[in-house]
Amino acid sequence: MSSLSIQHLLGLHEVPREDIQLILDSTDTFLEILDRPIKKVPTLQGKTVVNLFFENSTRTRISFELAERRLSADVVNFATSSSSVSKGETLLDTARNIEAMKVDIVVMRHSAAGSGHFLSTRCTSKFINAGDGAHEHPTQGLLDMFSIRQKFGTLEGLRVCIIGDIAHSRVARSNIYGLITMGAEVAVCGPPSMIPFDMEKLGVRVFTSLPDALRFSDAINVLRIQLERDAGADFPSLREYRNTFGITRERLDAAGKDITVLHPGPINRGVEIESEVADGPYSVILPQVTNGVAIRMAVLYLIGTKAE
Amino acid sequence: MSSLSIQHLLGLHEVPREDIQLILDSTDTFLEILDRPIKKVPTLQGKTVVNLFFENSTRTRISFELAERRLSADVVNFATSSSSVSKGETLLDTARNIEAMKVDIVVMRHSAAGSGHFLSTRCTSKFINAGDGAHEHPTQGLLDMFSIRQKFGTLEGLRVCIIGDIAHSRVARSNIYGLITMGAEVAVCGPPSMIPFDMEKLGVRVFTSLPDALRFSDAINVLRIQLERDAGADFPSLREYRNTFGITRERLDAAGKDITVLHPGPINRGVEIESEVADGPYSVILPQVTNGVAIRMAVLYLIGTKAE
Amino acid sequence: MSSLSIQHLLGLHEVPREDIQLILDSTDTFLEILDRPIKKVPTLQGKTVVNLFFENSTRTRISFELAERRLSADVVNFATSSSSVSKGETLLDTARNIEAMKVDIVVMRHSAAGSGHFLSTRCTSKFINAGDGAHEHPTQGLLDMFSIRQKFGTLEGLRVCIIGDIAHSRVARSNIYGLITMGAEVAVCGPPSMIPFDMEKLGVRVFTSLPDALRFSDAINVLRIQLERDAGADFPSLREYRNTFGITRERLDAAGKDITVLHPGPINRGVEIESEVADGPYSVILPQVTNGVAIRMAVLYLIGTKAE
Repeated sequence: MSSLSIQHLLGLHEVPREDIQLILDSTDTFLEILDRPIKKVPTLQGKTVVNLFFENSTRTRISFELAERRLSADVVNFATSSSSVSKGETLLDTARNIEAMKVDIVVMRHSAAGSGHFLSTRCTSKFINAGDGAHEHPTQGLLDMFSIRQKFGTLEGLRVCIIGDIAHSRVARSNIYGLITMGAEVAVCGPPSMIPFDMEKLGVRVFTSLPDALRFSDAINVLRIQLERDAGADFPSLREYRNTFGITRERLDAAGKDITVLHPGPINRGVEIESEVADGPYSVILPQVTNGVAIRMAVLYLIGTKAE
Repeated sequence: MSSLSIQHLLGLHEVPREDIQLILDSTDTFLEILDRPIKKVPTLQGKTVVNLFFENSTRTRISFELAERRLSADVVNFATSSSSVSKGETLLDTARNIEAMKVDIVVMRHSAAGSGHFLSTRCTSKFINAGDGAHEHPTQGLLDMFSIRQKFGTLEGLRVCIIGDIAHSRVARSNIYGLITMGAEVAVCGPPSMIPFDMEKLGVRVFTSLPDALRFSDAINVLRIQLERDAGADFPSLREYRNTFGITRERLDAAGKDITVLHPGPINRGVEIESEVADGPYSVILPQVTNGVAIRMAVLYLIGTKAE
Repeated sequence: MSSLSIQHLLGLHEVPREDIQLILDSTDTFLEILDRPIKKVPTLQGKTVVNLFFENSTRTRISFELAERRLSADVVNFATSSSSVSKGETLLDTARNIEAMKVDIVVMRHSAAGSGHFLSTRCTSKFINAGDGAHEHPTQGLLDMFSIRQKFGTLEGLRVCIIGDIAHSRVARSNIYGLITMGAEVAVCGPPSMIPFDMEKLGVRVFTSLPDALRFSDAINVLRIQLERDAGADFPSLREYRNTFGITRERLDAAGKDITVLHPGPINRGVEIESEVADGPYSVILPQVTNGVAIRMAVLYLIGTKAE
């Protein structure tokens, strides 16, 4: 069996096509395991994984933890609130300590972009980025890509549009890098204040009109609107956002084709997406959740068993 | 071996006698396992259990977690404070996500009465209610019944009185349903404001005099007084409560027989029960804790291995 | 193989030399296991360990949890914030409940000195003290001693100085008891207000001059300064502390020999120790972390498998 060229999974930027292909192909195997009555394989038996979450994230943490346990790894959870961080320890000291405890794999979420990269160059443990600030969230990107490939059989030549607050989204960033590498045509759509300047340089089309975006798309990835963030300078009111960019049955129908709908969750029903769409026949939102566990099993397996 | 008629354990209301009998009988086996040096069986190996606790509950959570681990299940804990709930996700979306992660059994505590029932009709995972509002707490009811049966050999014809704030107690409700089904004579005792109106309709005797209640009883189940709740309209002062309904050695002696004493814990020593009683020869409070792990092993085993 | 004379590990005070010797010797074996690709042995399979942490402690908790999992124990975590303690339950009731759940080993951290001793005399579970107030932290003492022995081959006749707030340090106390038992010459150094009165009675030298202390020492154990604590009556300002007792490269050089440097972590870089020293060639701070897991495996193994 082939092996990854990367040592860590810090993002999808500059990850070679062969690596992404290998992860997606391996995911098929793990997805099949998830349908067995006994969903467990001894792959990582005796290996230790620490989930180092400096930011809250129930879904991602549970998805990783299920993947880890189903690979028979030993799992230790480390959450912000109870951490040494509050004692003023540097991130590097925390990581060095975890490495000194002979931890094989560190799954890390942190608010600082690049934190995973910083640590991976200074520690011998393997790192998997579970979200670093607004930078990348590579396993989310991979599971989105896998879910689209599952529907269409390929990513090559497919037209995928990411809709929402692109500028602040690590999900958008990982999707863009990965999809382009795999030969998809990528677009983004949202209020101009939410679109970063560098999109066209990456070869990404920019739509500010949702109807145009939908006419372009085979699949759309609807980002979650951060209700916590205040409306203001770069952010319209929720009502305004919903009226202009909310995904409704009528708008999808108007595009005149069956567009596959993704959402990384959790959904704000009636804000960025209507229930009728989220629960409708073209939604792959729940398969995304299942695929998320399988993608993480594949990544943990490929990263965790790779020879140095 | 026989099998349960129920698919989930949401409460003891309308659970057939044969099911309760099967759970109580299976508990004997698991209790025996808890006395071995190696208290572990491979029954649920490869099955995933998520403890979905939307309300704090250290004891119940630890009791379930020990039961799950001793059955060799893979366990993932999910606690309120760090949950997606704070992001406004609906309970149903949370549950659908957990189901999509291919979780076999969900053990859930939630403040809303009926939440377990709501979910069990919409998801394919098996649900075990670990307390839903003031509605039911079926494993507590079962462990109380098991502890009484352990002392007397049967529940048939036994006189059991539940003492305290019946109206707000899920423990009381589950005990009442279960005990009646198993042929016990059930009574309740407490301040009139704490007794619900429907007691007599259920065939439950109501005592407002503690001495009368004690003269009636073979066993009493002393509920915890919620110190957090303010005294007021429906609630006497703690001192008044203790003076009228507190279980003391003298009051038990006055009843002229050896009454078995249960308490679901944690105890407020010197409030609803005196230490001399709680730690005395007729108390089964600590055996209840041991029985709680065994009951939960039995329920997890019977629910978790039942064919669809 | 020989066996410990102690039933619990509550502190190093009055622990016989043979017991400490056995723990340190066994640690070599577990340290070797930590260097294997599969760092897991079946020693405690089927045994249940509860980590009962009434005070926050990420590092110690993770170190114990890794040790427990690598011995194949079943692990249940119990942290303060979500505990019954907030419901007013007594420590003894909590412990009796955990015992009734047939827990084999309790690893406990608590703010009250002597809490482990109190419980161990009242419960049948085995207790390991993971820090009780300012009293003892025996596994830290053992890992410090192991780390020194690893460097010098023996503790007999070695000169070890503990530097910092001795009076409020459970780490200092455990080190002092253990090192003296093993035949080391022990000194302490710090501001007079931070040195307890009974040091010389224990046979411990007291230095108030750091240069004198360094000239004395083969190894120094630099305690963490509690930044949370206010400067005041018994506590100099941080700046003053650093100027007088901070461990710098220059001060170590001035002592004219290679002094081994320990620190229990987490480090306040630039306060009690400079980065150049903490990361320098004579620091064993990261080996201490690795040794901590191995020491805890040894203690859990020796306590957990000891016949009654």
